[in-house]
Amino acid sequence: MSKVIGYAAHSAKEKLVPFNFERRSLGVKDIQIDILFCGVCHSDLHTARNEWQNAVYPVVPGHEIVGRVISVGANVKAFKVGDLAGVGCLVDSCRVCPDCTDGLEQYCDGEIFTYNSEDKHYGDNHSGKMTYGGYSNQIVVDEHFVLHIPSNLNLAAVAPLLCAGITTYSPLRHWKVGPGSKVGIVGLGGLGHMAVKLAHAMGAHVVLFTTSPDKVVDAKRLGADEVVISKNPEEMNAHAKSFDFILNTVAASHNLDVFTALLKRDGTMCLNGVPEHPHPSPSIFNLIFKRRQIAGSLIGGIKETQEMLDFCAKHNITSDIEVIAMKDVNEAYERMLKGDVKYRFVIDMATLKA
Amino acid sequence: MSKVIGYAAHSAKEKLVPFNFERRSLGVKDIQIDILFCGVCHSDLHTARNEWQNAVYPVVPGHEIVGRVISVGANVKAFKVGDLAGVGCLVDSCRVCPDCTDGLEQYCDGEIFTYNSEDKHYGDNHSGKMTYGGYSNQIVVDEHFVLHIPSNLNLAAVAPLLCAGITTYSPLRHWKVGPGSKVGIVGLGGLGHMAVKLAHAMGAHVVLFTTSPDKVVDAKRLGADEVVISKNPEEMNAHAKSFDFILNTVAASHNLDVFTALLKRDGTMCLNGVPEHPHPSPSIFNLIFKRRQIAGSLIGGIKETQEMLDFCAKHNITSDIEVIAMKDVNEAYERMLKGDVKYRFVIDMATLKA
Repeated sequence: MSKVIGYAAHSAKEKLVPFNFERRSLGVKDIQIDILFCGVCHSDLHTARNEWQNAVYPVVPGHEIVGRVISVGANVKAFKVGDLAGVGCLVDSCRVCPDCTDGLEQYCDGEIFTYNSEDKHYGDNHSGKMTYGGYSNQIVVDEHFVLHIPSNLNLAAVAPLLCAGITTYSPLRHWKVGPGSKVGIVGLGGLGHMAVKLAHAMGAHVVLFTTSPDKVVDAKRLGADEVVISKNPEEMNAHAKSFDFILNTVAASHNLDVFTALLKRDGTMCLNGVPEHPHPSPSIFNLIFKRRQIAGSLIGGIKETQEMLDFCAKHNITSDIEVIAMKDVNEAYERMLKGDVKYRFVIDMATLKA
Repeated sequence: MSKVIGYAAHSAKEKLVPFNFERRSLGVKDIQIDILFCGVCHSDLHTARNEWQNAVYPVVPGHEIVGRVISVGANVKAFKVGDLAGVGCLVDSCRVCPDCTDGLEQYCDGEIFTYNSEDKHYGDNHSGKMTYGGYSNQIVVDEHFVLHIPSNLNLAAVAPLLCAGITTYSPLRHWKVGPGSKVGIVGLGGLGHMAVKLAHAMGAHVVLFTTSPDKVVDAKRLGADEVVISKNPEEMNAHAKSFDFILNTVAASHNLDVFTALLKRDGTMCLNGVPEHPHPSPSIFNLIFKRRQIAGSLIGGIKETQEMLDFCAKHNITSDIEVIAMKDVNEAYERMLKGDVKYRFVIDMATLKA
């Protein structure tokens, strides 16, 4: 058992404040990680403020974790003290269901999220019924759920790859985006900016859809071949029936039909976000008349997350970030709500110990 | 040019009545067919009554046509006088787009439906700006869009295969239904009863979903391994996350989420019908948490329609039908609206000539 310090929300209405708790003693397959950086995901805010009505307080958010191994259990094979290590959205799963054995732990019914999930080690030797996330100076995780972090990349800018990166990488790979593909990315936020970089590196022709004309220059810098203002019907119509795949990263309720109309026959639009208020009911006509599909995708499996990190190392891809101090996380949440971040806040955990 | 007789609707509010018109003179690739039987599809009613707001009157419905070749153009190769012949929902397409060259003419932007489409031969030598369908004693169609009818099956009961059959066969094949698949069919009407027969013959484990307990016995007779009353949450929950594929043949607005929840990871629910009033907005959560998909599918291509007919000949599959006289079509429409048909009306065209 190790005493750690973190930042927690104690109710939906309160700001995050310093919080002392214990991590469990090291199991034989466990890795103890000294956290260096933790990204700030919109899910952190949703959970801290109980916007998904599932928060169990205190909530210690954070699932874009990069750090260094400070101790390992007796049977740990893949990591040694001193190694760089990453933890994403998952810290456990059932390990035996078809999803787990297929390396798609994110779809396991027994998945345990990095924070605000029931902690199956509760009652062992640490505080808290729920998992506590990366807004803290240390974490203990089973090695199966720990990633190797490439050493050639900026560590702070790697952190968002553990959620925003894999959440966009996984569907781009699943729907076979590559050279010759015409791919649309809807929205240029934390997820969208990663999707543009990744789809570009995969060799696709990338079209970014945004409602904001002031994002055009940045989208092209990030790797978009074209930028379309989605409020402009003429610009949209020029791309009718031309996309192999569209990754829609916008979680706010919006009209999906203007995008399904842009898919080729057999094209798919994949949604990354669950809107708080439902999207308007999508046109079934748009689906039937070109055998199009609307799909969803959730983060990615552990094996695929490692593949994504290795891909990013090879292509020199990281997130565009703004590093903040731990004490400024509440202000960062407010700025995130205004879209005032390019494109991800990352907490420097050295500021927590200080 | 040949004078023919048919039945037409002259406005949304009027019953269908006898209607004299001309079919075009035979082109070099054309086939003239003496119509023996024509199925009554719900689309016929939708169009005759202008429920899709696209009817151009007079409307001569009918796109489940079986007959015998009575003359052929100079360059026709695949048919000779005396052959059985079928015509489904399409009589032409652009022939050069990727959809057409892939044998998926139903997705061609230039597709010409068997009735109520602008007739590209208008101005040649026949009456009508629009195509006129199978509620008539003869039709002239380019041989590319004419199907060979197996001789071992009941001809009247083959007619509905040209629409209801291919509309369900195509998605079952596209989503690779076969031995080992667990397949759900939603609704036991004209489409649903064909889907049950076809999926059963393909070797799948077939579960029929219906709201009507009085359809259980019939569904099992048609080939369903299990029947689930979809209004019963306990029965539904017993099948959670277990289906590879669900074919939803119900065009009326309904809650899609109760069915997407029954799909396995990576499972697809395909919709065959466009509802007049939109379905409630589907749960994106259901899609994201198992990478599920909602898709649409439209009839089938010509090559695939022939494949379906040959499959039906091999497995001795036809539609369950009630044969009616041409003059009784208006009454048949009323009975169709009440669901009082098992499972397809077919018009005996001998009753038109009489």
